[in-house]
Amino acid sequence: MLKTHGFAAQNAHTPLAPFSFERRDPGPNDIQIKILFCGVCHSDLHQTRDEWGFSRFPMVPGHEIIGTVTAIGNVVTGFSIGQTVGVGCLVDSCRVCPDCKDNLEQFCNAPTFTYNSEDKISGGNTYGGYSSQIVVDQHFVLRISDKLDPAAAAPLLCAGITTYSPLRHWQISKGDKVGIVGLGGLGHMGVKLARAMGAHVVLFTSSASKVDDAKRLGAHEIVISKDTDAMQQHLLSFDFILNTVAAVHNLDSYTELLKRDGTLCLVGIPDQPHPSPSVGNLIFKRRQIAGSLIGGIKETQEMLDFCAEHHIVSDIEIIPIQKINEAYERMLLSDVKYRFVIDLASLDANV
Amino acid sequence: MLKTHGFAAQNAHTPLAPFSFERRDPGPNDIQIKILFCGVCHSDLHQTRDEWGFSRFPMVPGHEIIGTVTAIGNVVTGFSIGQTVGVGCLVDSCRVCPDCKDNLEQFCNAPTFTYNSEDKISGGNTYGGYSSQIVVDQHFVLRISDKLDPAAAAPLLCAGITTYSPLRHWQISKGDKVGIVGLGGLGHMGVKLARAMGAHVVLFTSSASKVDDAKRLGAHEIVISKDTDAMQQHLLSFDFILNTVAAVHNLDSYTELLKRDGTLCLVGIPDQPHPSPSVGNLIFKRRQIAGSLIGGIKETQEMLDFCAEHHIVSDIEIIPIQKINEAYERMLLSDVKYRFVIDLASLDANV
Repeated sequence: MLKTHGFAAQNAHTPLAPFSFERRDPGPNDIQIKILFCGVCHSDLHQTRDEWGFSRFPMVPGHEIIGTVTAIGNVVTGFSIGQTVGVGCLVDSCRVCPDCKDNLEQFCNAPTFTYNSEDKISGGNTYGGYSSQIVVDQHFVLRISDKLDPAAAAPLLCAGITTYSPLRHWQISKGDKVGIVGLGGLGHMGVKLARAMGAHVVLFTSSASKVDDAKRLGAHEIVISKDTDAMQQHLLSFDFILNTVAAVHNLDSYTELLKRDGTLCLVGIPDQPHPSPSVGNLIFKRRQIAGSLIGGIKETQEMLDFCAEHHIVSDIEIIPIQKINEAYERMLLSDVKYRFVIDLASLDANV
Repeated sequence: MLKTHGFAAQNAHTPLAPFSFERRDPGPNDIQIKILFCGVCHSDLHQTRDEWGFSRFPMVPGHEIIGTVTAIGNVVTGFSIGQTVGVGCLVDSCRVCPDCKDNLEQFCNAPTFTYNSEDKISGGNTYGGYSSQIVVDQHFVLRISDKLDPAAAAPLLCAGITTYSPLRHWQISKGDKVGIVGLGGLGHMGVKLARAMGAHVVLFTSSASKVDDAKRLGAHEIVISKDTDAMQQHLLSFDFILNTVAAVHNLDSYTELLKRDGTLCLVGIPDQPHPSPSVGNLIFKRRQIAGSLIGGIKETQEMLDFCAEHHIVSDIEIIPIQKINEAYERMLLSDVKYRFVIDLASLDANV
């Protein structure tokens, strides 16, 4: 067994603190990875505080992992020691259901999430990337191009694929008019990716202070969502709107901006229901409200390669792991541009 | 001008009663039609009672019209005097917008509905099919095969196309598992059409009394929607669910029955919002909630030809126009299998 250090939440009410645990020795299909960086996703905060009601403690969060291969099992192919790799939200799935067969492991009914899941191989809980190392089946390990800054690439493993997958699934391409709602960790990736796909990108934000930054990130237009007149100028004009905002809000102000056959895609789950969307808005232009969940492993690799080709990474603020609790408080205030990334070298101070 | 007889609502609060008015003389593109039969759609009731708030009085309802050509304009092609034809919900549109260019006139922003619309040619209101004759531009006139019973074909012009169009748009074909929610005028057409397209058809109804009839109409399975256990047996199994119920209800009990990438399509607008649908149900299987509105003229002709080929018509109860107010009351009690159709020969008694 591999002695591993990390930071864990022992329950829903105490700050994250140093925690030591063991990982399995790499099996024939496994890759052992020394973790260099781990992005801080809003879902880490939700789950360490048990806000979704299915938390398993102790919990070592983290599913935006970048690291270096330190050992490989004897049937692993295509990976070598010293290579830079990534691990996202999933470390296993059933491999045999229709979703897995279609390379859409995120929809498998028996997935193993990188943390806060039952560890079906070693027992107990899976532990995530706020830690010194991880052992993962090769099928769930991603190749990270040398062209990508490793720290800034970490958020691609969740924020990147969560926005890339729906843009690809709804076939966004040159000439499409795409809206991105919200300029946070997800939204800022959505802007960069939709722009790189050739779309005309309109960023919707409730905060006038984000206008300059949204332009810098690639938005062609910015609409302040509280400005009803500005919103109305975009009526019936969007092919696709990717809504990254989980806070409760009125979806009708976006569905009415869609063209006929347009789709409003939600990637955030509100803690209370949104106001019930207008059925008329859907019927009178055959519009759709859809949801999308991260992406499959094959598509995650495709996204990483797309980002390498287009020089896309996340805008990040690197923190030592000792600042994680403070970072959570700042995330609650939206005081981050646009993703915290933990430098796991800082762990040594606790060992 | 053509002196025409019909039944009209003079305001939202009085019963329909005999009414005489004039139609335009047929122009070069027009077809003059002696009306034989007109289906009674629930929207006729809503609009005569001004329940949607945009009623124009006097109102002659009716948009499921079957008749015989009695005159044709000098540039009309493909129609001849004596031919059986149909008119549905639309009698004109702008012809130049992207929706019209795509043969989806129902989504045009300036449509002329068959009744309760501004008549842009003659002024005043358009008057519908509860009348002795109608004059319609050839583009909006449908050909009715001799294989179809004219009275039973009338409801195809609204109930038929409203259910056919989404089944075609979402590409239902052999092997798909399709749910139809509700067994009324729309639902009974949905069952027949989905069955003819080769789908495995499951009818959802709140009424156990409809089971035998649903089987007769072509449903492979019937689920009583209040039976939670029966509903749960269909979790994650549907490719597509067509929801014809406008009454307020919980959509989640249907979205959760969809497979990954499945669509719940709504064709009825509730008078109060449905409970807000679960976003998680959408995200975790990339499902969609969509709307659909009747169909374009080209697709309506395709539907009529499909029905002729597959011997599909509506189940109807023929009434004289003098029974229309009584029929409305029976519709409110769902006491009709499954569509009232007015025999306009009965009008003579009032002339």
